Amino acid sequence: MTMTLPATRRGGRDARRALRLARDISMLPQLTRNLPYVEPMSQEQVLRIHNASMAILEDVGVDFRDAVALQQWKTAGAKVVGERVFIDRALAMELLSSIPEEITLHARNPEKSVTLGRGRSIFVPMTGAPFIRDLEDKRRWGSLKSLNDFHKLAHMLPALHSSAHVICEPMDIPVNHRHLWITYSSMVHSDKTFMGMSTGGDRAEDVMAMVKILFGEDFIDTHPVVTANVNGNSPLVWDETMLGALRVFTGHNQPVLCSPFVLGGANTPAGTAPAVAQLNAEAVSALAYTQIVRRGAPAIYGHFLSTVSMKSGAPMAGTPEISLMNFAIGQMARFYRVPWRTSSLLGGSKTFDAQSGYESATTLMATVFGGANYIWHSAGWDEAAMVCSTAKFVVDAEQCAMAYRMAEGIKWDDFDEAMLAVRDVGPGGHYLGHPHTQSNFQRAFFMPELFDNSSIEQWQAEGAKNTTARALEYAAKLLSDYERPPLDPATDDELRDFIARRERETPGDVS
Amino acid sequence: MTMTLPATRRGGRDARRALRLARDISMLPQLTRNLPYVEPMSQEQVLRIHNASMAILEDVGVDFRDAVALQQWKTAGAKVVGERVFIDRALAMELLSSIPEEITLHARNPEKSVTLGRGRSIFVPMTGAPFIRDLEDKRRWGSLKSLNDFHKLAHMLPALHSSAHVICEPMDIPVNHRHLWITYSSMVHSDKTFMGMSTGGDRAEDVMAMVKILFGEDFIDTHPVVTANVNGNSPLVWDETMLGALRVFTGHNQPVLCSPFVLGGANTPAGTAPAVAQLNAEAVSALAYTQIVRRGAPAIYGHFLSTVSMKSGAPMAGTPEISLMNFAIGQMARFYRVPWRTSSLLGGSKTFDAQSGYESATTLMATVFGGANYIWHSAGWDEAAMVCSTAKFVVDAEQCAMAYRMAEGIKWDDFDEAMLAVRDVGPGGHYLGHPHTQSNFQRAFFMPELFDNSSIEQWQAEGAKNTTARALEYAAKLLSDYERPPLDPATDDELRDFIARRERETPGDVS
Repeated sequence: MTMTLPATRRGGRDARRALRLARDISMLPQLTRNLPYVEPMSQEQVLRIHNASMAILEDVGVDFRDAVALQQWKTAGAKVVGERVFIDRALAMELLSSIPEEITLHARNPEKSVTLGRGRSIFVPMTGAPFIRDLEDKRRWGSLKSLNDFHKLAHMLPALHSSAHVICEPMDIPVNHRHLWITYSSMVHSDKTFMGMSTGGDRAEDVMAMVKILFGEDFIDTHPVVTANVNGNSPLVWDETMLGALRVFTGHNQPVLCSPFVLGGANTPAGTAPAVAQLNAEAVSALAYTQIVRRGAPAIYGHFLSTVSMKSGAPMAGTPEISLMNFAIGQMARFYRVPWRTSSLLGGSKTFDAQSGYESATTLMATVFGGANYIWHSAGWDEAAMVCSTAKFVVDAEQCAMAYRMAEGIKWDDFDEAMLAVRDVGPGGHYLGHPHTQSNFQRAFFMPELFDNSSIEQWQAEGAKNTTARALEYAAKLLSDYERPPLDPATDDELRDFIARRERETPGDVS
Repeated sequence: MTMTLPATRRGGRDARRALRLARDISMLPQLTRNLPYVEPMSQEQVLRIHNASMAILEDVGVDFRDAVALQQWKTAGAKVVGERVFIDRALAMELLSSIPEEITLHARNPEKSVTLGRGRSIFVPMTGAPFIRDLEDKRRWGSLKSLNDFHKLAHMLPALHSSAHVICEPMDIPVNHRHLWITYSSMVHSDKTFMGMSTGGDRAEDVMAMVKILFGEDFIDTHPVVTANVNGNSPLVWDETMLGALRVFTGHNQPVLCSPFVLGGANTPAGTAPAVAQLNAEAVSALAYTQIVRRGAPAIYGHFLSTVSMKSGAPMAGTPEISLMNFAIGQMARFYRVPWRTSSLLGGSKTFDAQSGYESATTLMATVFGGANYIWHSAGWDEAAMVCSTAKFVVDAEQCAMAYRMAEGIKWDDFDEAMLAVRDVGPGGHYLGHPHTQSNFQRAFFMPELFDNSSIEQWQAEGAKNTTARALEYAAKLLSDYERPPLDPATDDELRDFIARRERETPGDVS
């Protein structure tokens, strides 16, 4: 089939191209969903999980391997035996009650500030890959340059609402300096919101010092501007490194993702509902602790989910139980009225192939239908997080834009007008030339740029490029078009001075 | 991580292998879902679609390009002007009221009979590819041999509930003999239910004659055993070929999928809700007609959905609007209490790459969350139906098994026992050796066979096979293990005699 393109208003190939590019890099506001949640649990089952989790907190307890936290729990009224904290359900619920149901994350460009919680969601790219696949799809160690490039892509991709932080590890930077350069890269290559490194209390303090330079000290104490992730050691352990970072961010009124790290069947019971019950106890224990650190501070119910292959011990992605756990956890987070973080678009494949696509799309659907608010790892994740793939990064971001459109639900504003078009066209006619089609086609149906839907003959004539090849061309074009968002040079100098000072104070090591 | 496999009860590598193989090819019963439907429309919006569709039937009309149908509509009380039928909503609703809400499709092996409708669903492989990708992933014309192989695979893949019919076109058979050999191949290579060719009334009569040989004439008049698809020519046209086939199948009490064929934006208005309103009018008109042909006969609310790229005119797969239309159509089918057929796992990619995976998984999730009952095109579809891919066929079927598991919802039967395991293991422990894990691991978490989750080192050591390579090995193994399900030799002879007679009566042509 061929058809004539309806004329654009401005006319001219360059104008159309400019228009398309302008649209491409302008960030979508946070998603405001207009789609019901998938909720497989009855209210009774939600309470069953809740009660099981509360019994775990009361009878089994949670280890807080951190002297400060143990003292704080004692003061708050919990029973503490060694490192183990036994938390009464009344205390846990009382603490959770002061967590705000919504959070506005302020970006340095106010137009890119976002609100999350309830029916509002944001997409955040992946974190922590030691390797990348580059613009030639070559697998190599991450570097500061490659991290800069991912921050640039995150800046330009409309459905990504954050530049995150350590999308890939800058292996060319000494370990104890990385948090400085990662934070700097997030801040300067994008004017979207970003994440703060949580690899210990000292490093978190450095991040907060840089955040104060960027936003001003007074501003941040009353405005969330940076999120930090804190992983639990399932089952039922929070360690000193994570708790130290939690205290710094929460103490500064910045939201922490309290994230049990689930390898279903290995560090949880082998079962969907039981795994959720344990994870829920873990999340609640950390969420409650944030409110001991600072009453009323924002916090996010987090998790990382995989199920473990009982054949090989490997973590799996996109399995049915991961979807079901996502739905159930979403129900629990809403039960506690706390914003919910999940992990999306996860792939375990060694190359960006069909497996990667199935796994990623399945997880994306589960997290969007489940109603996650902070949809993390939404771009680039492959090989079970060992790799951030440049090709996958841009494809995933387009998938987020498509899921975003779906979650906005069905539009009705032109319904009556369109019904008149049905009368105009009638049986056996066609709609391509109809005025309603011409005025609505651009918004009516999402047209992915990275998926090829042409005939095989046309595809061959264009070089028989697979998804990876097309995506890498697209990424290369984005990077060549990239423009750094404006930043006050004095602020930039101050950030660089801070990094230089901290590097002098703590000589680089590679331990 | 490595772990020791819990010992199986029977012990021995061969026994385990035999057990696994036995499990692999035993068909799952029809899916009985335990997951809520995704329903983006309010009851008011459902009525808005319904009323708009009824106004189309009453005021715009539908073309039935078939003299017999026009006469029947007149007799039934519709206003007929030329080929156009204007159907009063009271008449339409009165006719729909006699369509059964559930259908049991009887397979020649009674253990493989399935029920669909309400919360019950089946997965059916794709139809109509002129090309295949073979066991070497080579793209070539379909043949009877390749069709046989797809029927064998459909027979062996547990989540597929039907061998369908013309999965690929047997291009080596004369066009006017194909329906005979396609039907024969479906019947003998699998003992699951199957589909009947609907390329005209005469060919449908041949299919029914063969079905009578297989099941007995008396049996089929009271037992649905074969489904047939009838496509509409959107907008608002049903042609003679399709209506002739519809009359034959419906007349024999066999369920017809009444399927408007939507290229959103080209043959419908450019908009999700408006496209659904038109499609709904089309589906209702054909469903109503089935009840004129035979009151009380089973029938299925069908559709094929794509949206059209306004850049190239190409049909697209996996777009957000296709998902939304699926949800909305599901609501309409349930509003009319008629079983619903959809299309799943559609891909537009020219190779079985990441695009294919994303598109297929997105459609699968949409159709399963939407609650489709007859989930067609569930294996093999790529290149916008130009190709049935052998690799994709087996991967898709495993995806169906995974979606099946998800749609079964959360299991609670071992919840209390698992909570005791949490007490046993406690903070910082692990679950791998716990008795609850050992007794539940096999059913707790789905372990895909075709997705690789090992480390890159292990993957490289095993030959660095991508999804396509692994899937083709798997398909080759299935085909080498294939055993034809038993069929009474007299029946087989009778089927072959019938084909031979019909071939003599209608010499082969290639038109």
